[in-house]
Amino acid sequence: MTVQLDLNGVLAAAVGADGIGPQDLEDLAPRLQRIRADLVTRRTAGELGFADLPSRRDDVKQVIETAAAVRSEFDTLIVLGIGGSALGARALTTGLTGAGEPFRVVVADSIDPDAFAGLLSQVDVKRTLFNVISKSGETPETMAQFLVVRDHLLRELGAVDYRRHILVTTDATDGAMRQIVHDEGFRSLTIPAGVIGRFSVLSSVGLFPAAAAGVDVEELLAGAAHMDARSRAAESAMADPSLVLGGVLWLLGARRRKSIVVTISYTERLVATVDWFCQLWAESLGKELDREGRRVEWGQTPIRAVGTADQHSQLQLWADGPRDKVVVFLRVEDHATTADIPAAYQDLESVGYLGGRELGELLNAEQRATELALAKRGRPSMTLGLPAVNAFTLGQLLYLFEWATIAAAELIGVDAFGQPGVEEGKRLAYGLMGRGGFETRREEVEEWLARKNPQFVL
Amino acid sequence: MTVQLDLNGVLAAAVGADGIGPQDLEDLAPRLQRIRADLVTRRTAGELGFADLPSRRDDVKQVIETAAAVRSEFDTLIVLGIGGSALGARALTTGLTGAGEPFRVVVADSIDPDAFAGLLSQVDVKRTLFNVISKSGETPETMAQFLVVRDHLLRELGAVDYRRHILVTTDATDGAMRQIVHDEGFRSLTIPAGVIGRFSVLSSVGLFPAAAAGVDVEELLAGAAHMDARSRAAESAMADPSLVLGGVLWLLGARRRKSIVVTISYTERLVATVDWFCQLWAESLGKELDREGRRVEWGQTPIRAVGTADQHSQLQLWADGPRDKVVVFLRVEDHATTADIPAAYQDLESVGYLGGRELGELLNAEQRATELALAKRGRPSMTLGLPAVNAFTLGQLLYLFEWATIAAAELIGVDAFGQPGVEEGKRLAYGLMGRGGFETRREEVEEWLARKNPQFVL
Repeated sequence: MTVQLDLNGVLAAAVGADGIGPQDLEDLAPRLQRIRADLVTRRTAGELGFADLPSRRDDVKQVIETAAAVRSEFDTLIVLGIGGSALGARALTTGLTGAGEPFRVVVADSIDPDAFAGLLSQVDVKRTLFNVISKSGETPETMAQFLVVRDHLLRELGAVDYRRHILVTTDATDGAMRQIVHDEGFRSLTIPAGVIGRFSVLSSVGLFPAAAAGVDVEELLAGAAHMDARSRAAESAMADPSLVLGGVLWLLGARRRKSIVVTISYTERLVATVDWFCQLWAESLGKELDREGRRVEWGQTPIRAVGTADQHSQLQLWADGPRDKVVVFLRVEDHATTADIPAAYQDLESVGYLGGRELGELLNAEQRATELALAKRGRPSMTLGLPAVNAFTLGQLLYLFEWATIAAAELIGVDAFGQPGVEEGKRLAYGLMGRGGFETRREEVEEWLARKNPQFVL
Repeated sequence: MTVQLDLNGVLAAAVGADGIGPQDLEDLAPRLQRIRADLVTRRTAGELGFADLPSRRDDVKQVIETAAAVRSEFDTLIVLGIGGSALGARALTTGLTGAGEPFRVVVADSIDPDAFAGLLSQVDVKRTLFNVISKSGETPETMAQFLVVRDHLLRELGAVDYRRHILVTTDATDGAMRQIVHDEGFRSLTIPAGVIGRFSVLSSVGLFPAAAAGVDVEELLAGAAHMDARSRAAESAMADPSLVLGGVLWLLGARRRKSIVVTISYTERLVATVDWFCQLWAESLGKELDREGRRVEWGQTPIRAVGTADQHSQLQLWADGPRDKVVVFLRVEDHATTADIPAAYQDLESVGYLGGRELGELLNAEQRATELALAKRGRPSMTLGLPAVNAFTLGQLLYLFEWATIAAAELIGVDAFGQPGVEEGKRLAYGLMGRGGFETRREEVEEWLARKNPQFVL
């Protein structure tokens, strides 16, 4: 049950000039080898908090116990969180929950009033727990959702009972949500220090909603540990799938001008994992300056895609459009369910051949055909193959993506963990919403609007 | 209730060197003017089938009557279709159906066996109509779904009753689905000649599922006709929002190397419309050769995004990463539902300011803040503003996007209606699935797999 990375489709031998040649790999090897050594040091120094999440036994125990209690008290969990506080939970719950699972988890990462009010009107609050997730307690969307939900619970359940319906996942000591937990006596879980949102899927942030949904989180962590063991056991950096995935994507960006990485899942179960990876890659690597303060030239934009639907929506562009893409396929050998295609209309050429086949077979044939069709047009791709989607393989995949992202950050020379580019927008939004201390930001937005030329509004 | 295009954020006056200057607009104007005249000619010659869909009264009448009958007989409609036979239906039904609507429409564009079998196991087939949509009757995914569903219905309902549960939307005369309709006596609707999938949203392909879901399709078409009237009434091409939208995106690609267009919806209702637009832009414009057979240099990849979630996932990259993007905001003034944020914890700085505000206000403040934050970093954006999301405004928006795509195709010089780049993948998949006449394709895939070097599988 090991996840495999098939690089054949990115090689120059397969796709010609847009592929990676032997010289590229020879140049990459010593760089990755140095990075591998550096990362061991940084990990030992505690700089890579996400890396040790699979072995934080006490945290896992607490998550499992809390989830067991919650599953006996409620039948629905609504996660109030956004970005790194939502995408991991959604990846785990949609990836690993079967149709027969009675406990429902909804990740509510929208403040669209129509959608959010609609969601609240549909749930039986008596049977619902709300999991507020925010490390800082600053995120306006999550704080606003929390205030709306709190008021709704107070009115529906009263000032004593409502507390039981809120569980907060936040920093151990800092921030407004920890203060509120302290004052109100809400149940809470802790996000370990040094673990930021987009690397938090294997902390309480992702594990608790998953465990509530009935996911075997021990298996998930065992999968991550398995990938870790593979990496450690690799005889060189070039045999470590995580470092090589990051390294090859970096090479394609740096030397073949592949400024877009399309990740396409040929299973519905991993679509949310693709969204999660797109955040990881975009926010970790999309930096203006490197650690030395130099302007970063390298840049790669992640795109999520779904197979086979996007063959009918985007493939024309990938095959015939600008040569600026590398495609990463997610392929699953065993789809768990078998859905036979019954034979009928055997005399009709465009229908008859399907009889006796199976939906999963068609899905995987489409993946393979797309991979080869792209290669024939000189478009590079690689394939991440999973024997099946389960907690053990998904744990491997998530951990693989995390380390690949770190490896790419090292090759570029950027800090994977900051997000300085979003601060400005936050301050402007605070200004518009009337948060104290941001009055000049509101004026700035008003000036921007006043400066708009009506001639350019059609 | 008119949709507005605000271009201020793409101007050099707002964003500096990456913006559009007066000279760019002066150069664009005569080109667009010529294109405008050409398109009048092509439309009159019947080459732009999609353009006249709002005025095909007989088709609309048939759709409305069929939908009325279906709503009285069933309570669920499942659309079996993919790509252009799915995205428009999903845009209309998720965009315009309220929480109170009792009739449920599901667009099933996946052959994931787990997901598709799960869907079938959840519906009461006695109360469900399946709408098979395929113009050609060739699409393997839709044909396979149809065979699975047909067998399921035969077993659940018997050989007489099952027919009532299938309605086919296909070509008037050609293809396997029309043949099957003829032989089996299924109900059917017609896709007009000259209307291809990605431009079919205002034909029976999109209109029937929408009407079944309770959407006022007359209002939708009135919206499209309103946009058409605005375009015709514009005193010059530069006053026509559709042509200008296409023209400005083309300019940003051609002169400012904006190879990515991010469309971000600040309402859940228009997320599926963004997916629909991404297909339209990618497949219509992503061509290797222009009409004269010359290699196309221009290229732009569409990305779908959701506000505010992607501010917490992608914005760091848009703000600080490569300067290869233009952002199109979809902004709605009136979100229909008001969700007040109750005051609490007034002493906590990061929470207190939100009390007394409203979720839609926060959503729109985030949009405005993001627009300005991008502008301050020299990143161009434009804003499509809707007074509200309803059938009339969505009709305008869809028609606007269609004409903008056609305008861009004219500027590049490509045929907007073909998709030659996907044929190779189709043939390879036919080969793998054993369709007659494609045996050598299967061999080709087998050779591709045999050539793979195990050294590059980690």
